[in-house]
Amino acid sequence: MSRVLVIGCGGVASVAIQKCCQNESVFTELCIASRTKEKCDALKEKLEGKTSVKLTTAYVDADCVGEVVSLIKEYKPEVVLNLALPYQDLTIMEACLECGVNYIDTANYEPENTDDPKWREVYEKRCREKGFTAYFDYSWQWDYAEKFREKNLTAVLGSGFDPGVTSVFTAYAQKHYFDEIHTIDILDCNGGDHGYPFATNFNPEINLREVSANGSYWENGHWVETEPMEIKRTYEFPQVGEKDMYLLHHEEIESLAKNIPGVKRIRFFMTFGESYLTHMKCLENVGMLSTSPIEFDGKEIVPIQFLKALLPDPATLGPRTKGKTNIGCIYTGIKDGKERTIYIYNVCDHQECYKEVGSQAISYTTGVPAMIGTALVAEGIWDKKGAVNLEELDPDPFMDMLNQYGLPWVVEEHPMTVE
Amino acid sequence: MSRVLVIGCGGVASVAIQKCCQNESVFTELCIASRTKEKCDALKEKLEGKTSVKLTTAYVDADCVGEVVSLIKEYKPEVVLNLALPYQDLTIMEACLECGVNYIDTANYEPENTDDPKWREVYEKRCREKGFTAYFDYSWQWDYAEKFREKNLTAVLGSGFDPGVTSVFTAYAQKHYFDEIHTIDILDCNGGDHGYPFATNFNPEINLREVSANGSYWENGHWVETEPMEIKRTYEFPQVGEKDMYLLHHEEIESLAKNIPGVKRIRFFMTFGESYLTHMKCLENVGMLSTSPIEFDGKEIVPIQFLKALLPDPATLGPRTKGKTNIGCIYTGIKDGKERTIYIYNVCDHQECYKEVGSQAISYTTGVPAMIGTALVAEGIWDKKGAVNLEELDPDPFMDMLNQYGLPWVVEEHPMTVE
Repeated sequence: MSRVLVIGCGGVASVAIQKCCQNESVFTELCIASRTKEKCDALKEKLEGKTSVKLTTAYVDADCVGEVVSLIKEYKPEVVLNLALPYQDLTIMEACLECGVNYIDTANYEPENTDDPKWREVYEKRCREKGFTAYFDYSWQWDYAEKFREKNLTAVLGSGFDPGVTSVFTAYAQKHYFDEIHTIDILDCNGGDHGYPFATNFNPEINLREVSANGSYWENGHWVETEPMEIKRTYEFPQVGEKDMYLLHHEEIESLAKNIPGVKRIRFFMTFGESYLTHMKCLENVGMLSTSPIEFDGKEIVPIQFLKALLPDPATLGPRTKGKTNIGCIYTGIKDGKERTIYIYNVCDHQECYKEVGSQAISYTTGVPAMIGTALVAEGIWDKKGAVNLEELDPDPFMDMLNQYGLPWVVEEHPMTVE
Repeated sequence: MSRVLVIGCGGVASVAIQKCCQNESVFTELCIASRTKEKCDALKEKLEGKTSVKLTTAYVDADCVGEVVSLIKEYKPEVVLNLALPYQDLTIMEACLECGVNYIDTANYEPENTDDPKWREVYEKRCREKGFTAYFDYSWQWDYAEKFREKNLTAVLGSGFDPGVTSVFTAYAQKHYFDEIHTIDILDCNGGDHGYPFATNFNPEINLREVSANGSYWENGHWVETEPMEIKRTYEFPQVGEKDMYLLHHEEIESLAKNIPGVKRIRFFMTFGESYLTHMKCLENVGMLSTSPIEFDGKEIVPIQFLKALLPDPATLGPRTKGKTNIGCIYTGIKDGKERTIYIYNVCDHQECYKEVGSQAISYTTGVPAMIGTALVAEGIWDKKGAVNLEELDPDPFMDMLNQYGLPWVVEEHPMTVE
């Protein structure tokens, strides 16, 4: 029996809300709010008659704390599920604090102007002073921990798949399989094929950042930085097959390094196909990935935005994408004095997801954990106060719900490890 | 002692005009005319004081027969050297006919709207009806042969390097080395490196056409068509080294097939680097090479034109380009009852060209033959009436002038042949 306000109405929100509607014993009333109210109305219309959850919609500009506060005061939710842009995490957290409401999101805060080299430099400096290697990190949100604790509120940070499920897997491994975890390798594999020579699953600017940013991993108490895409490995993924993967920085390394005592190394790998990388490189070489406007025909045009207009709309990839994702973590450590290695992963089929919710696995694997985390906060099962990451919470109810809501997982003993 | 009107003032024209100024015994007066008179004035200013050739400039829109006629009537040249765009060959030929003046150009006529699929289809149909495989061909200009003959005028078609020098090489081989030529392989190798990951030496639309059009060659009296870039060979080019090259259609195959009796096969190969082709393919895949406008931010934008704006201006490549070109022809045939194979080629150094005329070898190798052909027509040494290709004229004076004006050639007996 709970009232939830969802902010944002993109692909992930659409999945999370549909999943809430499958969980009617927890979610009784849901307000869908975004800057584009028509999208909220369309989703509401699609779901009405198929669920007992009472759906309403609202307009809100999540950049504006005052607007979010007004909406929360009017709707009076128990939890706010933030599925807007990462730029809006702090304004929504501020509003939750002001109204005394619990908060949950799926991606860590990022200042909106990081594409501006001047600002990026400022953020990189800040980030390094805080002890991180990226140009945005969890510290912005962790700085709110004390305020949430003081107000006896919960802010759950990063309840998607990675970050999110990867943290729950880690807490589960810690609780049931290890006395001490020594290494964690998070492997994010997308074996999907949309049939286009080149397209991006989401905003190409974010895709670009992933491949053009320095990599980093945690080892023996400090960060080790790498050149972009410097470390490449090949792995034979269950149900997907052999794929090339590259070491990237990823936000959950920051929180796991803090929260898993005794961990010696944490790495994150993501698969990229040769063709994808070649296209990215060629586009970068000719300047098509630049975020700085050029003068063209009397008009300022930002190359990457023009590219975005040329590429297939990510939303249209759903019906075309075939194949599976496999995301999981390989742990090594000690249990009862013996060395142990396990691999916990989920395999998700793009076509199955599309049949169920009209979105492919990329949105599905983020949207389902968003619903689960929200349900656990709404029910008071997850009630740790402050700003917390998922590995700090009891993994068992979350793991049960993953099986129940479409993301079943496997624990493999003695898996192939990554060199 | 001659008066010449040059129409066009791009890279090739700049070289041709500078070379005319080195040949003061032939060229006494020269008018440089183009749609952008400022470019003509700038070139004139650069050359003045360094040559006894009397230079003048004029504005002309070469799309308009009437304007060209007026300019010819006013300037009264003996020859018009057309270095404008291939779209303007016919209007300039018309004007020469009307005024009774000899004509010479470097590239065969092409209708301006061939990028429009509707028109392209019309031209392809026409081309096939005329017995060719491309969507533009020499027949447009050959249709003027009779009119030029009737008026006792010479129209020399294609006096660049390829077409141009390659035809002169063939006439020279025919005259001095063979009783009968059986096969001709024209090899166009650019071993230059401008240091950019990707840039085009001239208009990227024309570069694109070369790699995306079907290939074709002449064999046993008919055309054989290939898929785009289907036939790839490797050749060890003297002074350049080993390069990959691809079979393309090229206009001189059309005229050589008509003018070289007994020839059994004529092919044209051009070198392309792996990286160049990969960039072209990736850009094509994302739609950046499209000539159809897309709606962007309330404006119609043609992707390839936007790409052009992003790429380095071809004019800026000159000072950066290092390395050499090697363009030539391999002939097999019979002399005095015995089989014979020879290779005639020129090697041209990008940096040397730039030092001499401020342009790299691509413009240089076209501009020098344009000057030579014009000189031979102006002096009445080349006086065959009609619309003629270079293999129909006496090669010896042209070959001498190549040595004299910066494009020395080599005849190699027993060269490596192409499979």
